[in-house]
Amino acid sequence: MRADTVFTNARLATMAPELSGLGVVAPGMVAELGGRIIYAGPEQKFDAANVVDCDGRWITPGLIDCHTHLVHGGNRAAEFEARLNGVSYEEISKAGGGIASTVAATRAADAESLAASAARRLQALMDEGVTTVEIKSGYGLTEQSELKMLRVIRGLGATAPVDIAATFLGAHALPGEFRDDRAGYVKLLTETLIPQIAAQNLADAVDGFCEGVAFTPDEIAQVFRVAKAHGLSVKLHADQLSNLHGAALAARFGAISADHLEHTDAQGVTAMAQAGTVAVLLPGAFYALRETQAPPVAELRAKHVRMAVATDLNPGTSPLNSLLLAMNMAATEFRLTVEECLLGTTRNAAAALRRADVGVLAPGRKCHLAIWDIETPAELVYRIGFNPLYRRIWSAS
Amino acid sequence: MRADTVFTNARLATMAPELSGLGVVAPGMVAELGGRIIYAGPEQKFDAANVVDCDGRWITPGLIDCHTHLVHGGNRAAEFEARLNGVSYEEISKAGGGIASTVAATRAADAESLAASAARRLQALMDEGVTTVEIKSGYGLTEQSELKMLRVIRGLGATAPVDIAATFLGAHALPGEFRDDRAGYVKLLTETLIPQIAAQNLADAVDGFCEGVAFTPDEIAQVFRVAKAHGLSVKLHADQLSNLHGAALAARFGAISADHLEHTDAQGVTAMAQAGTVAVLLPGAFYALRETQAPPVAELRAKHVRMAVATDLNPGTSPLNSLLLAMNMAATEFRLTVEECLLGTTRNAAAALRRADVGVLAPGRKCHLAIWDIETPAELVYRIGFNPLYRRIWSAS
Repeated sequence: MRADTVFTNARLATMAPELSGLGVVAPGMVAELGGRIIYAGPEQKFDAANVVDCDGRWITPGLIDCHTHLVHGGNRAAEFEARLNGVSYEEISKAGGGIASTVAATRAADAESLAASAARRLQALMDEGVTTVEIKSGYGLTEQSELKMLRVIRGLGATAPVDIAATFLGAHALPGEFRDDRAGYVKLLTETLIPQIAAQNLADAVDGFCEGVAFTPDEIAQVFRVAKAHGLSVKLHADQLSNLHGAALAARFGAISADHLEHTDAQGVTAMAQAGTVAVLLPGAFYALRETQAPPVAELRAKHVRMAVATDLNPGTSPLNSLLLAMNMAATEFRLTVEECLLGTTRNAAAALRRADVGVLAPGRKCHLAIWDIETPAELVYRIGFNPLYRRIWSAS
Repeated sequence: MRADTVFTNARLATMAPELSGLGVVAPGMVAELGGRIIYAGPEQKFDAANVVDCDGRWITPGLIDCHTHLVHGGNRAAEFEARLNGVSYEEISKAGGGIASTVAATRAADAESLAASAARRLQALMDEGVTTVEIKSGYGLTEQSELKMLRVIRGLGATAPVDIAATFLGAHALPGEFRDDRAGYVKLLTETLIPQIAAQNLADAVDGFCEGVAFTPDEIAQVFRVAKAHGLSVKLHADQLSNLHGAALAARFGAISADHLEHTDAQGVTAMAQAGTVAVLLPGAFYALRETQAPPVAELRAKHVRMAVATDLNPGTSPLNSLLLAMNMAATEFRLTVEECLLGTTRNAAAALRRADVGVLAPGRKCHLAIWDIETPAELVYRIGFNPLYRRIWSAS
């Protein structure tokens, strides 16, 4: 059989659902033609233009970070420092800190500088074998600046060798200008922004933050209704700091994912299971905020809700720029198994983005590979702050 | 004035004790002659062979990781995975796991393979601007294999562009062969190993693990007495899992550092303050072991005990291969300030190794620099799993 490139003499963690666990095939090989995987399995003969001898190294699907806010202006290092020096959240907030400072910096930044600062963070993810990244808007909160963010996100996808999923997160925080007109802001989202974004194909999904400090379940429902009417997938920041039944709300709308979930109850998990909504766990925010209530992992497991793991890379609550580290944190803090962590950054992360073309080493999928200098896949989760990537393969097609 | 190289147009965090905080000089420059810093301060004219324009970037002293176990055979990824799958510590221990498995792998490995696996971990530290690393023996626990480890450690220092401090940690764990002869093992350390190590200059200091699962205060005292008689500095793994008054013991022997300290009481802190013993905080082990009792930071602060921060890089309780991340963990978990974290990996880490030639940007010190692509030093602590190093300068002299 003909191939463009074969990756031979490897050990594969295919993540194939028809195999158990990580879908290990060892020894094994991957064959690629026209940017797509045409074979992943035990060694066999191919008529290939290029042969990459992996010398026994492990191949996984290119990793997928399915929840980031990596496009933003400024950073919050000064606020981080102030908090350690004993300044309270309230004082920081009164001084214009918190998300408001990121919104101000993002509004003030032009598209070029937003793209440049984001590109650095994106490259750090890619350096760890990440080939697909979801990026949200949500620090503009005006028509112009939300569209600017989405264009920057689409632009990153057009220029960097990585697949980008763009998510519209207008319902991230109520901007100061609408302090006394919540309905007016929701109207801006539903009547102006979502229609434009859909028409211009600026986003693949619509997200919201359902929380006391953000939007009510009812406001989120309005946004979701309009998003779905425009053919956009929905997903939700749900039950992170309190239980507003966000997971159940997300499930009711057939959300592709519900994210965070620290306070989700059994009913929420059941609803997610029935809707096929993926649970995206974000241990970086849990770590940085020093939270103590972990997501209901045992319940999610018991009800066969697929779990993904992501960085939540953002300047405030999770300046975590490493998906490998997110896996270690998911294991250490949430007691996810190695298998759950690795499926959570491949097959299940693809499901969280409703992407059928990545996340598994199988014929027809894009040939996005991460080749690792490791003895066992567990090393990818076990090490803390060490990157054993040997080579990353990203295929444009 | 003549210089070999000047680093101009920079912002300096000199860590100079005569300045407050991080000893910031901005704008500033560093001048180097013969591998030593001859000037660090506001811009002035030099007659320099090389000019490095830092374009406003920050310069800190090269970072110092003052507590690692980075030379070892094997890894414990399988054990990490098993624990997540519900296997108990006891079962793992019965199956030869835990430190015993690292000891077996280290004994079995030849010097070349030990050096090769360590070099990879060392390189990852260096890639983050680390220019001085302490490395301990302690996984051999026989005469031959402890000497092998120390020679590998010395060898890394001779070949890699990094300063290495070698520490003899024979009193790390009681080897199985001596299960019924604790005194015999202590005798091996004090009568055979320490004299040889001192005579051959194979270590700069002697360390011990004072804990219920390791060595008693009395056994440690025997080891320390002999170490000091041979002119070696001493340091101690103290009060990590319980309070055996290890900090006070270390102070009594004028230890250069006492490390971990989660269970150290006020008396221990007072003793350290009086002895000038540096407190080395190891948040990676705290994180990986999911400990809940943090070291007595407020007490250490109040009594002006110098605090250092290190990775504790080891295959069991802290597979943490990033000193930047150790700083973030020290801030997040132990509430160290940004200043404390950065002094803890520079000036105070140098003190923990009793090294007067590194850790501060000041005339006479080695020209070990880390040049960073950051806007404020706080970014080095704030970000999680992101490496903003622009350039690392290590000077052989």
